[in-house]
Amino acid sequence: MSSTTSKAASKAPSTSDLLKRSLAHYERMVDISNASSILGWDQEVLMPPGGAEVRARTLAELSRLSQEFAGDKAFARDVRALAKAKDGLKNQERRTVELLERRVKDATAVPPELAAEFAVIKSHALEAWKAARTTNDFGRFAPHLEKVVAMNRKIAAAKAGKKGQPYDALLDIYEPGATMAEIDPVLGELRDLTVPLVEQVRKARTKIDMRPLVGKFDPEQQRAFVKDVVVAMGIDLERGRLDVSTHPFCGGVGPVDVRMTGRFDPQDLRGGLFGAVHEAGHGLYEQGLDPKRARHPLGGAISMSIHESQSRLWENQIARSRSFWKHWLPKLKKRFGAQVKSVDLETMWRAANRLGPSMIRVESDELTYNLHIVLRYELERDLISGDLKVKDVPARWNAAMQARLGLTPKNDSEGCLQDIHWAMGAIGYFPTYSLGNLYSAQIMEAAREALPDLDAQIAKGEMQPLREWLRKEIHRHDRVYTAAEIVKRVTGKPLSADPFRRYITGKVDALYPK
Amino acid sequence: MSSTTSKAASKAPSTSDLLKRSLAHYERMVDISNASSILGWDQEVLMPPGGAEVRARTLAELSRLSQEFAGDKAFARDVRALAKAKDGLKNQERRTVELLERRVKDATAVPPELAAEFAVIKSHALEAWKAARTTNDFGRFAPHLEKVVAMNRKIAAAKAGKKGQPYDALLDIYEPGATMAEIDPVLGELRDLTVPLVEQVRKARTKIDMRPLVGKFDPEQQRAFVKDVVVAMGIDLERGRLDVSTHPFCGGVGPVDVRMTGRFDPQDLRGGLFGAVHEAGHGLYEQGLDPKRARHPLGGAISMSIHESQSRLWENQIARSRSFWKHWLPKLKKRFGAQVKSVDLETMWRAANRLGPSMIRVESDELTYNLHIVLRYELERDLISGDLKVKDVPARWNAAMQARLGLTPKNDSEGCLQDIHWAMGAIGYFPTYSLGNLYSAQIMEAAREALPDLDAQIAKGEMQPLREWLRKEIHRHDRVYTAAEIVKRVTGKPLSADPFRRYITGKVDALYPK
Repeated sequence: MSSTTSKAASKAPSTSDLLKRSLAHYERMVDISNASSILGWDQEVLMPPGGAEVRARTLAELSRLSQEFAGDKAFARDVRALAKAKDGLKNQERRTVELLERRVKDATAVPPELAAEFAVIKSHALEAWKAARTTNDFGRFAPHLEKVVAMNRKIAAAKAGKKGQPYDALLDIYEPGATMAEIDPVLGELRDLTVPLVEQVRKARTKIDMRPLVGKFDPEQQRAFVKDVVVAMGIDLERGRLDVSTHPFCGGVGPVDVRMTGRFDPQDLRGGLFGAVHEAGHGLYEQGLDPKRARHPLGGAISMSIHESQSRLWENQIARSRSFWKHWLPKLKKRFGAQVKSVDLETMWRAANRLGPSMIRVESDELTYNLHIVLRYELERDLISGDLKVKDVPARWNAAMQARLGLTPKNDSEGCLQDIHWAMGAIGYFPTYSLGNLYSAQIMEAAREALPDLDAQIAKGEMQPLREWLRKEIHRHDRVYTAAEIVKRVTGKPLSADPFRRYITGKVDALYPK
Repeated sequence: MSSTTSKAASKAPSTSDLLKRSLAHYERMVDISNASSILGWDQEVLMPPGGAEVRARTLAELSRLSQEFAGDKAFARDVRALAKAKDGLKNQERRTVELLERRVKDATAVPPELAAEFAVIKSHALEAWKAARTTNDFGRFAPHLEKVVAMNRKIAAAKAGKKGQPYDALLDIYEPGATMAEIDPVLGELRDLTVPLVEQVRKARTKIDMRPLVGKFDPEQQRAFVKDVVVAMGIDLERGRLDVSTHPFCGGVGPVDVRMTGRFDPQDLRGGLFGAVHEAGHGLYEQGLDPKRARHPLGGAISMSIHESQSRLWENQIARSRSFWKHWLPKLKKRFGAQVKSVDLETMWRAANRLGPSMIRVESDELTYNLHIVLRYELERDLISGDLKVKDVPARWNAAMQARLGLTPKNDSEGCLQDIHWAMGAIGYFPTYSLGNLYSAQIMEAAREALPDLDAQIAKGEMQPLREWLRKEIHRHDRVYTAAEIVKRVTGKPLSADPFRRYITGKVDALYPK
């Protein structure tokens, strides 16, 4: 293919020319990535089954093109030249160059042969994981996990160089700039504050009536109710869609075409409602990005954890609040008559906030969820450092589950085989979930300070003041700031477990008194 | 981008190596084209309006990549080397090389600057056409049509070289291998046989009761009915979808993921039913292609006219036949009770086959449709040869409409501004519609000979014998044969207007006796 940058310029190009050329090349990368996003959404939501194999090849080709574009030699040369001229640039241009450098570095750190080898390993690992999970046989997955760990260590070493921490290099893929030095103590604190609260929940004699959320809920009515909620949150359906898929997610091409999905269980409102609010939290972030930066390196979400902070904020801090239900309970009653007719606000709030340990991460509550994450973080951190052997994963898993949640998996399928992440080759991803929870509490405290009438507004169904504040403070800035910078700007403090401690302790004490 | 073919081989590669390399490169082109197809479908069927601008850029990038891949220098060199070795190849390999040559020639005949210039002209022409149509002002479109014609002449000259006919080079884009020398007399014959039949229709005193198809038809019931029909035709919904869009079409990725759409008017069953059967005819062709050739140059539909022959065959020859309604009328009555309760088979058949001249091509019947096409063909042929000036298009159009259909457009919006094709830059496309009609009649005569019980089968709702025959005789062969070759193989004769003459004369005589 012809390169977008010329190979032999008669004289050295100016910084402005270099930037222009690099941005034009970058735009092509965004176009290719946008194509993948929509094809991925289509695959999950409505592709007929016969299309699977050809679709896999199409997506593989787009991924190959992405890599070729990011690793293009002329592009890399331009970006490196820009990096040298960085000091003479204005703030946003410097940040732009840093983001371009990051893309080039990610694409070139791992040699193509290694990337190809990893693709094969991941594909086999995924198949083996599926079989292992069906047969409750960790032994079938173990040799593949060995290879996934070994390959992640190689990639981490290539990215981190001699000085860096290998796990940091992996974390950085999902959470740019985050380090173990920063997150390890905070996640440890999160674990230590959570364990006694779980104990408190288990010992309390609280009884919770679940009829407001478990029973008979017509899926079409659920969809209609959920649509009302997300539109009230501020989701613009002229720039997005809400569909149904087996695994709810938020995809598409933010901010102009955001595709959210939900799943509606006729016997349980929880997954359909809180799941959709969660995805709509992601969706609001995407729709809040600046459309003018849609194909620019500064455009897009900052990181996985900042994304997750937005979804969790709406799901837990808002949709499980008393204020929220003051407005929405009467509307719920209109939709689902008999099932919720006699439910009062307090009963609704208690049902929405029931806590209790469970075996499966994706089914867990907002308290115990973090223990599931910290467990996975500790294991993958130790797998990468070499302190943990793959064969010892099930024992470590089960011991930690017993010690922290008081539960022992009856087999590995409800234990260390439950998640797809490692089978997909992803190590370093898990922490972003809990970082998101911590950020959501920290951001929410700042929101309450900035919006003193917030609860009264939510109680009237007015969610736009909160949404506008989030948009102005976070969404609109795209990638102009790093995650650490934006949190510092918005909350005045670096990452901390304190706001979450205050939030969750208040909830536990109210619902499960000592 | 790295090229898939190496630049400096130490010794000349073998024919088998060249072929392997070229096919690997070709597969990437198919993947990119498949991505475009699905994104195009998404855009028409369900994309939120906000996504339009970004989607246009995504599709433009994929189109650019397609051109870069097709025009890749190393690929072109390999294919030219293969072309030289063609005589030593077996039939299918030789045909493969010919198809590869065609791709390279198409991509390299037109220099990139000319292609870029044309893209701009087309984009402006499209905007001007929209405005001209709204204001009934051909003058607004004329200067753009001048440029479209001039650019098509340039491209035709580049493709045809000094010896070739320019219009043939344009026709060849949509109908590979077709020439004016071949189609001009047949289309002339088609015109001459149709004009007196239209006259016969206009003079007959036939009254047709349209209540079987015009009245009150619930769109959801229409969708359900149409789904039953297309499934009975043999559409496999595990390898395809049937959705709703403003302009019905058949897209997707044949044969594994074929996306058909329909439009359902609550007051008129015709567009919804015959339109969907038409698209399902296209869909059956796509689903009948050999999946093993899905990413190979031999894979895919032969030409636009062969595609159209399949859609027209099902739409007109089958779905407007008495046999078809013998089976489906009782089912129609079950779905639409009151509206069709007292309709008998003869009334149904007559309503489905009403003929009569009209101003708009896309609303016209199967008799007059070809006059609309031949008119456009004659005009564009003469625009390219220089025998017709753009400014004289409206007068020529209106005169031909009056002479052949007995109608004069009251303005250019219902005259020469009605179609989008020229505004999109496409000259040479129109004839494929009528070629498709001619082929459909020719193929149907062969089918009746091969399947003596065809009518009885259709009358029992058994459409699989016809479908399997079409699949075996046409669909399965992908591009192994040219359009001319396949028609010769299937019908024993070259393209001819005779079968269509027999078919349509029979219908006109039955419904509109002299």
